[in-house]
Amino acid sequence: MTTIYPVVWSNNKVLLIDQTCLPSQYTLVEISRYEDMAKAIKTMIVRGAPAIGVATAYGMYLGAREINTKERETFLKQLEEVAEILRQTRPTAVNLFWAISRMLKIAYETIGTVEEIKNTLLETAEKINAEDLQTCQDIGKNSLQIIPPNPDKLSILTHCNAGALATAGYGTALGVIRSVWTAGRLKRVYADETRPRLQGAKLTAWECVQEKIPVTVISDNMAAHCMQKGLIDLVVVGADRIAANGDAANKIGTYGVAVMAKMHNIPFYVAAPLSTVDYSLKNGDLIPIEERDPSELYQIGDSVIYPDGVDYYNPAFDVTPAKLITGIITEQKTVKPEELISLKPELSYH
Amino acid sequence: MTTIYPVVWSNNKVLLIDQTCLPSQYTLVEISRYEDMAKAIKTMIVRGAPAIGVATAYGMYLGAREINTKERETFLKQLEEVAEILRQTRPTAVNLFWAISRMLKIAYETIGTVEEIKNTLLETAEKINAEDLQTCQDIGKNSLQIIPPNPDKLSILTHCNAGALATAGYGTALGVIRSVWTAGRLKRVYADETRPRLQGAKLTAWECVQEKIPVTVISDNMAAHCMQKGLIDLVVVGADRIAANGDAANKIGTYGVAVMAKMHNIPFYVAAPLSTVDYSLKNGDLIPIEERDPSELYQIGDSVIYPDGVDYYNPAFDVTPAKLITGIITEQKTVKPEELISLKPELSYH
Repeated sequence: MTTIYPVVWSNNKVLLIDQTCLPSQYTLVEISRYEDMAKAIKTMIVRGAPAIGVATAYGMYLGAREINTKERETFLKQLEEVAEILRQTRPTAVNLFWAISRMLKIAYETIGTVEEIKNTLLETAEKINAEDLQTCQDIGKNSLQIIPPNPDKLSILTHCNAGALATAGYGTALGVIRSVWTAGRLKRVYADETRPRLQGAKLTAWECVQEKIPVTVISDNMAAHCMQKGLIDLVVVGADRIAANGDAANKIGTYGVAVMAKMHNIPFYVAAPLSTVDYSLKNGDLIPIEERDPSELYQIGDSVIYPDGVDYYNPAFDVTPAKLITGIITEQKTVKPEELISLKPELSYH
Repeated sequence: MTTIYPVVWSNNKVLLIDQTCLPSQYTLVEISRYEDMAKAIKTMIVRGAPAIGVATAYGMYLGAREINTKERETFLKQLEEVAEILRQTRPTAVNLFWAISRMLKIAYETIGTVEEIKNTLLETAEKINAEDLQTCQDIGKNSLQIIPPNPDKLSILTHCNAGALATAGYGTALGVIRSVWTAGRLKRVYADETRPRLQGAKLTAWECVQEKIPVTVISDNMAAHCMQKGLIDLVVVGADRIAANGDAANKIGTYGVAVMAKMHNIPFYVAAPLSTVDYSLKNGDLIPIEERDPSELYQIGDSVIYPDGVDYYNPAFDVTPAKLITGIITEQKTVKPEELISLKPELSYH
């Protein structure tokens, strides 16, 4: 069982593992104010859709705590302003908007003093954190029913980091890998390094090393060759937002991996909590795709790679169409993309 | 017209552009001894299959020059030893073996003194250099007959660097791009950065900037997304070795790009001189694939990216099957992969 928790509530503060420093340094960042949480999300000190959701929930509480009024209506109005600042941090991961909606809803529905609403908000943030950990463990458990019986030990390719660091703990895609490992069915992880930010090489590899899971890091453009050579039995990735039809946005490069997997008849699974499903969007064309600063591309460490005079394009996500997805592994069960609609909760925070 | 010549004979020495220093520094390296040429090829001061061929030809002459004998047989025996050292440098690019065979053949066939053989070897190296430049220009010219009529201005994706730097000058894939640009039919180049050594970002982008050709560098894993968004009209890449059936080995990641292009109905061309075709190999499975040092992956500039305890896989090339290749653009004409056999020369140096 993993002991990596990227978002922890401790002594009236949030402790975040600074994911921009891994693997060379393991550093905790203390967050006491919601503006600092917004900044931490924007600069990717905390990243990964479910972890962003958890961090945002605490961010909402930190914002609530700072509101100096006993007037319920004034409080709620100012809480909406906090929500708006947090909404501006990152556009693609729907768990961010989901957490904000859930926190706002509970604030509006709580009867009592402003102090009581604040207490309820902290409890809800704690609940979202605990639920997400449980959700990841359930995803891992459910995955054991769908992994192919052959070969006896599987080599699994994953892209980016959908691990403990990207969630409350345990991970979605890497949660699946942890479960397969614990079940004695894992041979090796192939981790795409995942340019430009290299979360595969930096974070997924680091998580695997912590638990002595054998991991080979490859550059993104080696995945096709590895599949051609028969080195990959299964692909599992996370998601930042899934549309109602099963189209899934995830870290840039995921779409290419899905096409490759299809071409080589390799099962391609998306592992994600239902909080990542945005039932308000009919299909993936409607998912907003964040473009990030080109310095993510042209600078690595202290090295500037690109010559002057070059143009940049740095989309952070792409959309994998449902038809390329073998199944979506959720905390309830694994479904085909077209069956996702059957899991739509009556109460949705989207 | 380009003025980039990566391999130049000058004052009884070879001048190489040090391609490991671009784009931050433009440095020339002087090579006077064949062992230094072998090292320059191994460490990729000079790289790209046709440029390796040219450099090897000069390397053979430098080796011949060092042989201190007037005995023809002793000379030829020692020249074979020089050839063997040069053959050990890099396994995939067939132009290396082609150039060695051609130089050895001319040595054996030259009637006269050892001094006369040495002179003939220098002339032949000069000829190989001049021929390769002409070949690239012919490839560029021939490509104008096959580029699609629509749209009026094309966006072309290329992978790695098959430019002036990779040849005697002008380039194969980038020669095609130069010709399309000169013909007023080019909108923009999309250059895959091409991990691990980043020759797309470092070399292709640099060449484009020199000639003010608009270029967008993307990470390798963005190519699929760009195709999905309709940004790419055509793909053209170089090759390090092409088997008789049209299967083509090129820089790692090329195979993935070819699959993507197929999936999106985008024409995928290989531009290469006939010296890159190894008619002795029935298909691409027989092409030896070089594996290079893992430090190419885990170290960028002074930054170590990977955590300790990770395994490595660093194949430098992959093989694109003929069925994914729209056409092979050679100095004679553009052919379908299955027609390549019709261009087999009577005299082959492979």
